[in-house]
Amino acid sequence: MVAFDADTTRRWADEGKDVIMVRPETKPDDVHGLLAANGIVTARGGRTSHAAVVARQFGKPAVIGVEALLIDFDDRQMTIGDEVIREGDWISIDGTRGEIRLGKLPTVVPDFKNPYLLKILGWADGIRTLGVRANADSPQDAERAREYGAEGIGLCRTEHMFFDTDRLPIVQRMILAKYHSERNEAIAELLPLQRNDFAGLFRAMAGYPVIIRLLDPPLHEFLPSHDELVQDLADLKMRLQHFNTMSEVDEALDQIRIKQDFLRRVKALREVNPMLGTRGVRLGILVPELTQMQVRATLEAACACAKEGVDVHPEIMVPLTMHARELEVQATVIRSEAEAVMAEQGIEINYRLGTMIELPRAALTADEMARCAEFFSFGTNDLTQTVFGISRDDAERGFLMHYVGNRIVPENPFHTLDAAGVGKLMEIAVKLGRETRPDLEIGVCGEHGGDPKSIALCHELGLDYVSCSPFRVPIARLAAAHAALGSSSHREEVPRG
Amino acid sequence: MVAFDADTTRRWADEGKDVIMVRPETKPDDVHGLLAANGIVTARGGRTSHAAVVARQFGKPAVIGVEALLIDFDDRQMTIGDEVIREGDWISIDGTRGEIRLGKLPTVVPDFKNPYLLKILGWADGIRTLGVRANADSPQDAERAREYGAEGIGLCRTEHMFFDTDRLPIVQRMILAKYHSERNEAIAELLPLQRNDFAGLFRAMAGYPVIIRLLDPPLHEFLPSHDELVQDLADLKMRLQHFNTMSEVDEALDQIRIKQDFLRRVKALREVNPMLGTRGVRLGILVPELTQMQVRATLEAACACAKEGVDVHPEIMVPLTMHARELEVQATVIRSEAEAVMAEQGIEINYRLGTMIELPRAALTADEMARCAEFFSFGTNDLTQTVFGISRDDAERGFLMHYVGNRIVPENPFHTLDAAGVGKLMEIAVKLGRETRPDLEIGVCGEHGGDPKSIALCHELGLDYVSCSPFRVPIARLAAAHAALGSSSHREEVPRG
Repeated sequence: MVAFDADTTRRWADEGKDVIMVRPETKPDDVHGLLAANGIVTARGGRTSHAAVVARQFGKPAVIGVEALLIDFDDRQMTIGDEVIREGDWISIDGTRGEIRLGKLPTVVPDFKNPYLLKILGWADGIRTLGVRANADSPQDAERAREYGAEGIGLCRTEHMFFDTDRLPIVQRMILAKYHSERNEAIAELLPLQRNDFAGLFRAMAGYPVIIRLLDPPLHEFLPSHDELVQDLADLKMRLQHFNTMSEVDEALDQIRIKQDFLRRVKALREVNPMLGTRGVRLGILVPELTQMQVRATLEAACACAKEGVDVHPEIMVPLTMHARELEVQATVIRSEAEAVMAEQGIEINYRLGTMIELPRAALTADEMARCAEFFSFGTNDLTQTVFGISRDDAERGFLMHYVGNRIVPENPFHTLDAAGVGKLMEIAVKLGRETRPDLEIGVCGEHGGDPKSIALCHELGLDYVSCSPFRVPIARLAAAHAALGSSSHREEVPRG
Repeated sequence: MVAFDADTTRRWADEGKDVIMVRPETKPDDVHGLLAANGIVTARGGRTSHAAVVARQFGKPAVIGVEALLIDFDDRQMTIGDEVIREGDWISIDGTRGEIRLGKLPTVVPDFKNPYLLKILGWADGIRTLGVRANADSPQDAERAREYGAEGIGLCRTEHMFFDTDRLPIVQRMILAKYHSERNEAIAELLPLQRNDFAGLFRAMAGYPVIIRLLDPPLHEFLPSHDELVQDLADLKMRLQHFNTMSEVDEALDQIRIKQDFLRRVKALREVNPMLGTRGVRLGILVPELTQMQVRATLEAACACAKEGVDVHPEIMVPLTMHARELEVQATVIRSEAEAVMAEQGIEINYRLGTMIELPRAALTADEMARCAEFFSFGTNDLTQTVFGISRDDAERGFLMHYVGNRIVPENPFHTLDAAGVGKLMEIAVKLGRETRPDLEIGVCGEHGGDPKSIALCHELGLDYVSCSPFRVPIARLAAAHAALGSSSHREEVPRG
């Protein structure tokens, strides 16, 4: 049945109901609803929107960006064209086709233990030369990824751990801190939490590499939005006039002060083009304590697991580098913190240090990058964004849909890797990188890692592996086998799970 | 003397006073003040901010981004540290060094007719192989550029003509139009205005090429800002309560309705990353009538000038292309409109059609671009933005200053072309482009075109010309000669005007 907010979704799911959460769009504070729902529908967003990324990560069917959808929160109902659907009514969705149907249709849970499927996947594994890893942020994800045949974690987005409801206040305290000491206290509180997360990943992926990416998103993503704060403040001030008791007034004034603090910081962090702003390694360079904490958490977890007898292979990845010097500066921080932890723990861990290649300049100077980096991972979402000059956030509601519809671009480049542009740049990076370091390990961890046609291109470019959402691992194994058979044109026949 | 708004600046300047306009930042509706002022100071912004670009264009000394500057509009005074300066007080500024001094210092107007200077520039012209053009948007600019020795216009930013106070309402009507017919009426009104502008440019540049770039910026730049509209609406609603007569109320309601219309459109046009959004050729593809109008204005002006006996060389340039197909689609529109005008006018004009190369994908697929494009012009501002993944709008108040200060990047890449990254991509584009079309004309029209070190790189890359602000043309002529002498390291000795 349909629910219009995360709390209702969670409550009904806890009562054993099947719930589809319908939202205008989703944000980090909707995640508990996303996790509880059987499926998700949003009015806005595209393939790389929050709702789509989280849904893919957790294997939830989703229909994203239904422009005709209007939600009336007052009357708790939604309309799509002439159809009116009330909260609690039944709908069914098909995430692959992007369809919404009225009523409760019969559905089947895909069976990944089916012996015929396992047989075919076994054949695929015998043929393919491309490795298949998974993008996973939690031990549960990692376990599922192993079940589906992933040979390691190609991307752990550590920021997803920051959005948990019990951690977000600590992260916000870190961002709002006026003094270094205050900020570093908040960072210290995050350390044990991250250490536990990483230990869980290492245990689930015993014997396989786990790539931990340092904090990537711009900090404002952890704060309420500017417009929301302005609206809240206006509402609070309006209400001030109608209070009767001093304690009510005091409480409202407190609230106003808190929101004003947030707003001041949000304004200071505000950027005209946040995707091209203060994120990735730029954060790590401005706040090296963040890098230190994440490296410490990684190594402390690795040492603890190794002492339990777990075979750990941590790989620390620096995001959004554009210049080899950034990597050198961060490598100094990373190596000295790692050495310190290993000395404290009295155990040696064989970890690696590498970088995302997700900006054109990183690809064009890959020979210099490879002097410091022991591995590369192409962030093809961001690389597509900068090579084309198309904002991922805006792409699927703007001109790009007109372009795809009118065949001005042959395909949505955020869906299928663009061979002529992005692919050419990747080719340059592979060549330059391996000139400096012949055994350089190179993979892909963007959304393209789960797309069969893009997987074929990765095979042609001589990459070592692709990394995709756990649910796409079986498809990637098949697509990699197809690519090895030289049959990238067979894409249509690839089974869809 | 100091003035704190554009109207005061204009009024005092009209009274014959020397005025320095001091603003938090500038916007298109401050331009009349900018033009009237002797100099400009702003609290916010960097090299590519509105104030800096306009000041450079018109040769106004400017000190941009004075973070310590606070303007108190109520008391009409400003403070910098402990100094308090009241409106009407005297200050003097040095735009080259970024200095503000109290009082009225003696100044000298540079003399570009000095015979010694002309002699040296003449020697330079005999040595250099790189052409020097100017970026100019008005006949006055173009005349000045010729005086300083520019051999054509490398970039006419047609949108600057859209910001004129008598035209902005027409442009806004075009953007707010609900129907195609309404939109096309507004576009038609712009035609004669643009035709006059272009005719003036052709006359001033008789015998030389004039590159007219089709509309480039995102449309929201022609509308009031979102935050401003929200604030205005809140104020208007507040004031509604205090009106006495019905006519006052009616007027306020009218105002509210107009602002709400604006706000609705601004919200619809709003993008998370506008620099990677709906601008450049993307506009021309979504609204081909805009391209048609600008091509018609160009060709009608060229035909009229040719009939007067003026030797015209119009070149029409498509901005922000990322895929050869975009260029083909626009070329069809451009060629058929040009043919129509020439048939109407009964005269043949030898015009060229080319493209900006300002996105990595355009550079990487330059062989395909050159099939349709008869010339390339590198937009090195945007190319630097996407190659580095740094927002031009945010760069100079954010992490980039930390990077430059701590030598993580050797220089500000928006100031001096980055040879290892952006330069390498330009080299690829030059090679690929000339493989398809050996006589392809290639230039640069970004801010780098006036920077001696960048000019040396352009010479090495085998470009045909650089294009810069008219005031920088003499410096560019000298720098081009230095480059030809193989003395790019002599940069420090290049005279500064």
